[in-house]
Amino acid sequence: MMDKRETGGHGGDLQAVAAELGVQPEDFCDFSSNINPLGPPPGLCEELQKNLLADLRRYPVPQARVFRDALATFLGIPVERLLIGNGASELIHLLFLWARPQRVAIPFPTFSEYERAAKLAGAEVQRFPLSLETSCLEADKIKKLLTWGDFIVFCNPNNPTGMFYAPEKIREIVREAADKGVTVLVDESFFFLTARSFKELFLGRDYPNLWTAVSLTKLWALPGLRLGVLAGPAEGIKKLTSQGDPWRVNALAQRAGLYCLQQKDYIARSLKMIYRERDYLLKNLGEIKSLKVFPGEANYLLVKGEEKDFSSAALFQYLAAKGILIRNAANFPGLDQRYFRIAVLQRENNRRLLQALKNYFQSTGGGR
Amino acid sequence: MMDKRETGGHGGDLQAVAAELGVQPEDFCDFSSNINPLGPPPGLCEELQKNLLADLRRYPVPQARVFRDALATFLGIPVERLLIGNGASELIHLLFLWARPQRVAIPFPTFSEYERAAKLAGAEVQRFPLSLETSCLEADKIKKLLTWGDFIVFCNPNNPTGMFYAPEKIREIVREAADKGVTVLVDESFFFLTARSFKELFLGRDYPNLWTAVSLTKLWALPGLRLGVLAGPAEGIKKLTSQGDPWRVNALAQRAGLYCLQQKDYIARSLKMIYRERDYLLKNLGEIKSLKVFPGEANYLLVKGEEKDFSSAALFQYLAAKGILIRNAANFPGLDQRYFRIAVLQRENNRRLLQALKNYFQSTGGGR
Repeated sequence: MMDKRETGGHGGDLQAVAAELGVQPEDFCDFSSNINPLGPPPGLCEELQKNLLADLRRYPVPQARVFRDALATFLGIPVERLLIGNGASELIHLLFLWARPQRVAIPFPTFSEYERAAKLAGAEVQRFPLSLETSCLEADKIKKLLTWGDFIVFCNPNNPTGMFYAPEKIREIVREAADKGVTVLVDESFFFLTARSFKELFLGRDYPNLWTAVSLTKLWALPGLRLGVLAGPAEGIKKLTSQGDPWRVNALAQRAGLYCLQQKDYIARSLKMIYRERDYLLKNLGEIKSLKVFPGEANYLLVKGEEKDFSSAALFQYLAAKGILIRNAANFPGLDQRYFRIAVLQRENNRRLLQALKNYFQSTGGGR
Repeated sequence: MMDKRETGGHGGDLQAVAAELGVQPEDFCDFSSNINPLGPPPGLCEELQKNLLADLRRYPVPQARVFRDALATFLGIPVERLLIGNGASELIHLLFLWARPQRVAIPFPTFSEYERAAKLAGAEVQRFPLSLETSCLEADKIKKLLTWGDFIVFCNPNNPTGMFYAPEKIREIVREAADKGVTVLVDESFFFLTARSFKELFLGRDYPNLWTAVSLTKLWALPGLRLGVLAGPAEGIKKLTSQGDPWRVNALAQRAGLYCLQQKDYIARSLKMIYRERDYLLKNLGEIKSLKVFPGEANYLLVKGEEKDFSSAALFQYLAAKGILIRNAANFPGLDQRYFRIAVLQRENNRRLLQALKNYFQSTGGGR
């Protein structure tokens, strides 16, 4: 089932699971993809509907330059350091193909596209284990990373753990890496869904060896449209901008981006809700004896089944039959069949998940 | 003006020209991009509007596999030989990056993205001149192509001339190329907008060294959404499918593709209109003494100013001030400031263009 369901082993392929179970995708309660549960900002659909015909008929603005300029102003980053793309994933693949690193060091468990992109670009990959409890690399491992690789990737906050690296630690690594000629990529795709201060954001910071990527579809709940940004040294961004075809980013994604940048109330409301519901889930999952929940700061939580025979695949099937989709995290290197990941949704759905989990552990006596 | 206006030197960047002239993009009569002038099929906007919220919130179907299956059935091509992408341009760039040819032979004048994509992928490029009158390569030039290159590109019908290579000639070249280990790419992005029989289509034909690309946004008038297909040997398509991120093609483009495949009446109506208007333009442009029009078969025509001092840049400016946008073709290698290209639009606009051209040549006495 895994292969058919999740191309690349990711969550969110509702269509295939739904087809398999003979239900409609919209009937699923989807905890498998980490999207703002409030959905797109109010008024966005109307904005897109109103301009739909014009946006279909015209070529997109090359390089999404109008949106790029607006985003640069919004973030206070020089526009020369930004490239807009069809989601962060596409941009990360593009960066690897262009930079062609030889040896890529990746702390794990983490999002699997880094390793895939690195290997597709011809690099050798070495994984460095993170402490699951703290998302931290110990000092000697960091030294090894910097000696071994010519390219390092950090996912911050990390996926699937939801935990942050200490910002001063990343700064230190970036500086040391610069001295050694090592490039650092920090993927901050979930940063804007956490409570961390913008001061800790690396996006667009001016280091000669630092690249940062952010997905714009998580916070704005637009994964169907594809939108992301890559920031890096101006010289490198200029070269990457000259790659590929200039109309890559579709006209609707550009319009949506421009609209969403203005929706500050919606962002504030979303974050308030996500913080509250994350705490609710943390507390209530913590009370289920058979489960251990990791204290993530993002809009998703990594959970571990504590009973001996627990299998996240079995739990997945049990919940899917009840219309609840979780992310079986067994295919994250470094994790196994004891782990699963859930997105933070709205209260009603979170309550439904918690109840289903309680029923599951009662009916199975805790494990399987 | 050129640099700011047309990233990569292509037509269709309305936004920038409009901003420069202080008008709204929708007020332009756009002869610069070769899109079906009837616009998207009736009902498409409603179909997209109805499903908009769901399509935004969900990840796109990986590899656009539902649409890919439908397209395969529609075209009678095994699905294993098709890859869906964000427009033909993206797919051509992807093919070059993956195939990494050493020496790419390109008959010219033609669409400039082939050369750009080849060079970005590290290839050496050699241009082989076409006869503008017949779009034909002479026999000795074809031999040279096959001896010199390991990769050949044909645009069929050719852009900007609108003329076809003889299908038996391409077949012969593909076969000879196979013997010599040479790969052939045929871009048929405008084929479906011509009156040629499907028998002459190369898309998806089973040669071990043949790749074909088709843009799906010209006939369906969806350039803002991005949608295209690449066909090739199953083994190669499988490898290309494993590149990049699987959600590349946005959900709306996929839904639009599925809808458009069913709109047979609209296609028939579009083609009838385009044939009629192309003939109308051919005839009437032919009657303007200062112009020579090439007998293209596509939904665009290449035109040459015959007067000594004619400059397509000056004509561009004159027409733009009147709200008419043409494609200055001076930056097509092999052409010069005497050439421009116009799309076939609906009668009212075509008449407006013809009248403006007549006024221009009267006011300037033919040249500048």
